[in-house]
Amino acid sequence: MKVELIAVGTELMAGHLQDSDSLDLARRLSSLGFTVRSRTVLPDDVERVAEELRAAARRSDLVVLTGGLGPTRDDLTREALAEAADRSLVLDEAALESIRRRYADRKKPLPEGADRQARLPEGAELLANRLGTAPGIYMRLGRARIAALPGVPREMGPMFEKQLLPRLREILPSRVLAHRIFKIAGLTESEVDETLGAVDLPGVSGLSLIGSPGVVEIHARVAAAKEEEAEKALDQVDRLVEERFGENLFGRGEETLSSAVGALLVAEGATLATAESCTGGMTARFLTDVPGSSGYFLGGFVTYSDRLKRDLLGVPEETLDRCGAVSAEVASAMATGARERTGATYALAITGIAGPEGGTVDKPVGLAFVALTGRGTTAVHRFVFPGDRKTIRRRVARAALDRIRRRLLGVEDGGDES
Amino acid sequence: MKVELIAVGTELMAGHLQDSDSLDLARRLSSLGFTVRSRTVLPDDVERVAEELRAAARRSDLVVLTGGLGPTRDDLTREALAEAADRSLVLDEAALESIRRRYADRKKPLPEGADRQARLPEGAELLANRLGTAPGIYMRLGRARIAALPGVPREMGPMFEKQLLPRLREILPSRVLAHRIFKIAGLTESEVDETLGAVDLPGVSGLSLIGSPGVVEIHARVAAAKEEEAEKALDQVDRLVEERFGENLFGRGEETLSSAVGALLVAEGATLATAESCTGGMTARFLTDVPGSSGYFLGGFVTYSDRLKRDLLGVPEETLDRCGAVSAEVASAMATGARERTGATYALAITGIAGPEGGTVDKPVGLAFVALTGRGTTAVHRFVFPGDRKTIRRRVARAALDRIRRRLLGVEDGGDES
Repeated sequence: MKVELIAVGTELMAGHLQDSDSLDLARRLSSLGFTVRSRTVLPDDVERVAEELRAAARRSDLVVLTGGLGPTRDDLTREALAEAADRSLVLDEAALESIRRRYADRKKPLPEGADRQARLPEGAELLANRLGTAPGIYMRLGRARIAALPGVPREMGPMFEKQLLPRLREILPSRVLAHRIFKIAGLTESEVDETLGAVDLPGVSGLSLIGSPGVVEIHARVAAAKEEEAEKALDQVDRLVEERFGENLFGRGEETLSSAVGALLVAEGATLATAESCTGGMTARFLTDVPGSSGYFLGGFVTYSDRLKRDLLGVPEETLDRCGAVSAEVASAMATGARERTGATYALAITGIAGPEGGTVDKPVGLAFVALTGRGTTAVHRFVFPGDRKTIRRRVARAALDRIRRRLLGVEDGGDES
Repeated sequence: MKVELIAVGTELMAGHLQDSDSLDLARRLSSLGFTVRSRTVLPDDVERVAEELRAAARRSDLVVLTGGLGPTRDDLTREALAEAADRSLVLDEAALESIRRRYADRKKPLPEGADRQARLPEGAELLANRLGTAPGIYMRLGRARIAALPGVPREMGPMFEKQLLPRLREILPSRVLAHRIFKIAGLTESEVDETLGAVDLPGVSGLSLIGSPGVVEIHARVAAAKEEEAEKALDQVDRLVEERFGENLFGRGEETLSSAVGALLVAEGATLATAESCTGGMTARFLTDVPGSSGYFLGGFVTYSDRLKRDLLGVPEETLDRCGAVSAEVASAMATGARERTGATYALAITGIAGPEGGTVDKPVGLAFVALTGRGTTAVHRFVFPGDRKTIRRRVARAALDRIRRRLLGVEDGGDES
């Protein structure tokens, strides 16, 4: 079954706003087994939308539009549907009543043009909107089904699930598509590509890589006649990824480096503290993104200035002078200081040069030292990451989280200071 | 002049990847005065891309494709161009030579299919790629200009600027479009909408609002015959926004709350420290996003546990017991402790409940206290923000930055503890 997605809205044209609806719909419909044949963004222009609708209805089984259903004169999706189907717009009294009630419930006056939202192409069905005023529309055009949903994401999603999906039962594809995301740390995107190599497993219709600073995701898609078969095929991919990536694989789906670290700390009954210089609190922030992180993360220090490294963490003045703030020695002293002052089982310390200024030949922008201390041992790792300030900071913070993760897994090497 | 954008790539269809190229191109071409008539994402499918190309070439003056120019068999944009124009693909010897040289320079073997990248539709021009192996293509189709650029953003941008733009000189619109972004803190999107009200200024073709947690952007677009006129119209909008929003307007364009705070601290010759509980380092991280922030941001504390609030910041045990960790009293004691221990001119402290757990009737999820101390006075503000954990944390961190900004501007009220 083929589907085409059309997002309508002049505000989406100039490139200052991304259209998130059709991305969301593409995900939902793909996982149901639909093949997405196009995603198009168009201005609020009756002729242009109607033209695209007619072409899409000839090519595909389903066309889903989002946006252009509001009460104002700019909102022209209803008109475009009527134009494409060569039908007139008629007032749906029940729809008007429900819109009136909605405004009355909120004690707001009915805005001019509110009745426009109750007009549907002749023969079309209304899709109720429990979260806003704009009802959706469902109709046939030739052999295709057409649905128009509101552009507001928090109204669109529920309307898709509750109103549209039940109406699509008869054309829901018999093949099931399933999807699993694997998350890899410690390797670049091209290293992941190389390590993954060729994958030839039955039912696996696609493997793609998505890289971000410090983490690479492998997205696996499979198609099968039944859900259990699809899951079985994904389990095969799972074993293969585990085998090829070992401890570099840190999670699946919604798991993050922080949640993986959290689970390991909980399992060990251990606590963690941080001391950050160049990442300026980003590592602590990543750790506390996880609900319940107060169970193992005690807190930490952002010692951006040398003085605070000395006063708050007890880094010796002499070490700062002799080795410089960005050095293995200072990272190590920061970690030790943070652990002593917080009483945490482990402390993670970071010092580096995020740029754009401050680099030298010996200590370039992107250089960072990550020290981890706890249970009687301290290890320091040295990194040099490419990229701009933002990228470097993210990569350093994630490298630090990956160090404690490996240590908790028992696969941490002794560190290096090369 | 009308332009249509087509992004090609099967990997873009299932909704797991956003297409950033056409967003970037829409911005670049809009600011040159082109009207973007559609942005379409299509799979690597010769027939489908050719069909869309022919339709777009009939409707518009320029069509820009991105993606599908790589060396592999999936990359079919060249074939689609040839099909749409009904021409054959011919080998461009100069292009092949340059691709060979590129691989030789990197000491990599020429991959199978590399010569595919040197094949162009008859009569088309090659667009040199100095940053990758895939050359671009420029050609005519009927009255329209067609350009195909590589999908990799860091190759696409420079090729657009250096190779494509000079070839578009003759169709560059005579009307100039300009754009300015205004940034507002302390108001919700609907409050900004209401405060802005109707704007009727000559040349102003659009004002739109983009909200994110804690910050609302007003995007203003103007069209004029000359650049100076466009700038003049934007200056009029600027005065109007300043007048209507006063100190809620904190910046323009690339400015952020953190950079605004930084500029004010530098002007005053003051320094800042932070003490964070529920935001877990996010405020420090925002502050240190700004290059050069080490000039005024000394560092801070992430005191996620009550014990660290006591041990690191000296918050009295009795206050924690009597008022609870999320209270005006504890926020105030955290700020005082942070200022004393760092010697900063100002200290900003945050304590709150980010959820999803931990809320009560008296202290719901979303409750936060922000304390600011320095130059002899301390003020505490209480907030209750809606949203999920992520949204609440961002809003609280931004509200905290906005408190110090207002204080430095001299428009801070005395705080409240209601």
